[in-house]
Amino acid sequence: MHFATRTRSPRLEKAFELILPKLEKVEESLALHLQSPVKTVSQVGDYVLEAGGKRIRPALLLMASNLLGYRGELDILYGTVLEYIHTATLVHDDVIDEAGIRRGRPSANSAWGNSRTVLFGDYLYTKALKLALDAGDLRVLRVLNDTILCMTEGEILALESEGSIDLTPDVYFEILRRKTAMLFAATCEIPALIAPGGSRWAERLREYGLLVGTSFQLIDDLLDYTAEEEVLGKPVLSDLKEGKLTLPLLLALPAATPVERKAVETVLREREFRTVTRSQILDLVDRHGTPARARKLAEETAERAKEALAPLPDGDAKEALLYAPDFILNRVL
Amino acid sequence: MHFATRTRSPRLEKAFELILPKLEKVEESLALHLQSPVKTVSQVGDYVLEAGGKRIRPALLLMASNLLGYRGELDILYGTVLEYIHTATLVHDDVIDEAGIRRGRPSANSAWGNSRTVLFGDYLYTKALKLALDAGDLRVLRVLNDTILCMTEGEILALESEGSIDLTPDVYFEILRRKTAMLFAATCEIPALIAPGGSRWAERLREYGLLVGTSFQLIDDLLDYTAEEEVLGKPVLSDLKEGKLTLPLLLALPAATPVERKAVETVLREREFRTVTRSQILDLVDRHGTPARARKLAEETAERAKEALAPLPDGDAKEALLYAPDFILNRVL
Repeated sequence: MHFATRTRSPRLEKAFELILPKLEKVEESLALHLQSPVKTVSQVGDYVLEAGGKRIRPALLLMASNLLGYRGELDILYGTVLEYIHTATLVHDDVIDEAGIRRGRPSANSAWGNSRTVLFGDYLYTKALKLALDAGDLRVLRVLNDTILCMTEGEILALESEGSIDLTPDVYFEILRRKTAMLFAATCEIPALIAPGGSRWAERLREYGLLVGTSFQLIDDLLDYTAEEEVLGKPVLSDLKEGKLTLPLLLALPAATPVERKAVETVLREREFRTVTRSQILDLVDRHGTPARARKLAEETAERAKEALAPLPDGDAKEALLYAPDFILNRVL
Repeated sequence: MHFATRTRSPRLEKAFELILPKLEKVEESLALHLQSPVKTVSQVGDYVLEAGGKRIRPALLLMASNLLGYRGELDILYGTVLEYIHTATLVHDDVIDEAGIRRGRPSANSAWGNSRTVLFGDYLYTKALKLALDAGDLRVLRVLNDTILCMTEGEILALESEGSIDLTPDVYFEILRRKTAMLFAATCEIPALIAPGGSRWAERLREYGLLVGTSFQLIDDLLDYTAEEEVLGKPVLSDLKEGKLTLPLLLALPAATPVERKAVETVLREREFRTVTRSQILDLVDRHGTPARARKLAEETAERAKEALAPLPDGDAKEALLYAPDFILNRVL
């Protein structure tokens, strides 16, 4: 489901017209740079690209780039770079989580095996940096590489907490910041580094990206509780089944009864819904009203993202960036 | 087993004195940059570093740097970078090969699990590039990143050929070039990029590195046939057991009898020495005299490496670089 193709609001049509041609070029570029003399690279690459994705990071980058009046083509290149980095983390995460399904069909690791998928992830990270090295901007390279380092540490931190009912909200938010929000921050900051005179907006755009990314992940975690399985493309409560506590349950635990707590511990230990059913967990969070609280936090975060943009120049691109947090709040997958 | 500590030849003592202080600084640097707020990173890092390693890449880099009269400290930094990249490929390879033993003790994946090891490898690659980005030399960064890309493609190519008796010598050498020789080439080229006036030696040193790396891997593959298990730190014929044909067997196959060929196919299929014993395979290559042919090729390659150095300035450092190929030929692990 493409970010751009989902917009129907007439208010935004014009803004999207501004980025659609470049978004298509990003799509071409994504396919182009996965051609390799080693055929497995191209095959796994085609498989992963065909699965699609919302391309929300390239879209945000192009919007911010447009807002700052950037006229070159580096935004297409960095849009490609960011989508590769994002995809690299996805495929390695899926190996680690032993995920069988991604975007409604077998994950890369299911289809191609762990070995090829690990190496394909390595290839994507390295190809992303190669493209950025071709552009040769050390500031952008440092932002990108620091982000990858931060994301890798975030994934390791997540692994350390896996299966534990003692995960604190602090650590949950630290994982969220590292695994998701930092890449959105880099996405939105990069246009400020490449657009002439853009530097003065770097902090604001970075802040916006961090908040958009936070809101994005809060909704992602929430959808695992509230979405329909056929819409989500994977069973609900996949996170919990993988041993991951997310906010709806984290917020419920302090007030949970011993029986409720025990039920959560059982799923975390068994890594399946056997002794405890999905319905029992969904009832539990509903009783505590925590999905609504998580949603409220995502909404507040989205509002703060919009506020961060206040001083930036008005126009269609800004309207699009102001709409992005709403789009994220209202997405169903 | 440390590269430097194994040298006993008085002819080389003086040359090693030149690099030992810096080699020790590389060792400190390797430990220092694996300290992370995420404790698993430090723990897996300590585990992997404690296992040691020959540090042959940092040693070669320091020697070449010394030869070109480089006086700064970037060679220590890049020595660290290269050892991290090398280690990252090792830990990912061990995950892929499901290797249980590395350097005579449980491999990182055995000790820490696949998930942590995959992420630790990601961390190492990214940390290596972070250090190089701190130095900020785009030419070196491109050499490093292109090498990682080439190595990743090499590992994927190796995976494609795994278990196949139809591997050709051409593909074998292409895998060897990508997986091993390219990193040695980068190792030896980098000093030419950082030493004032070093550029004119870049091609020569790169060629030297490529040949040294080729010889190194030829010997590595040979040792899997000829070494003692307790010296090697893992059972002999590990490569074949993992489905990998290497030169001693590749050279024997064209002249092999149908029975011999069938024996090789059986091991490649069963991935263990059950129907066919280790002794049968060792006898097979001995009958065809191919370990000696592989050794001769390694020796000729080592000679060509030395010849590549001919025009470079004479001195202790050059003597050390001329000795390195001999050291590699004579190593027992």
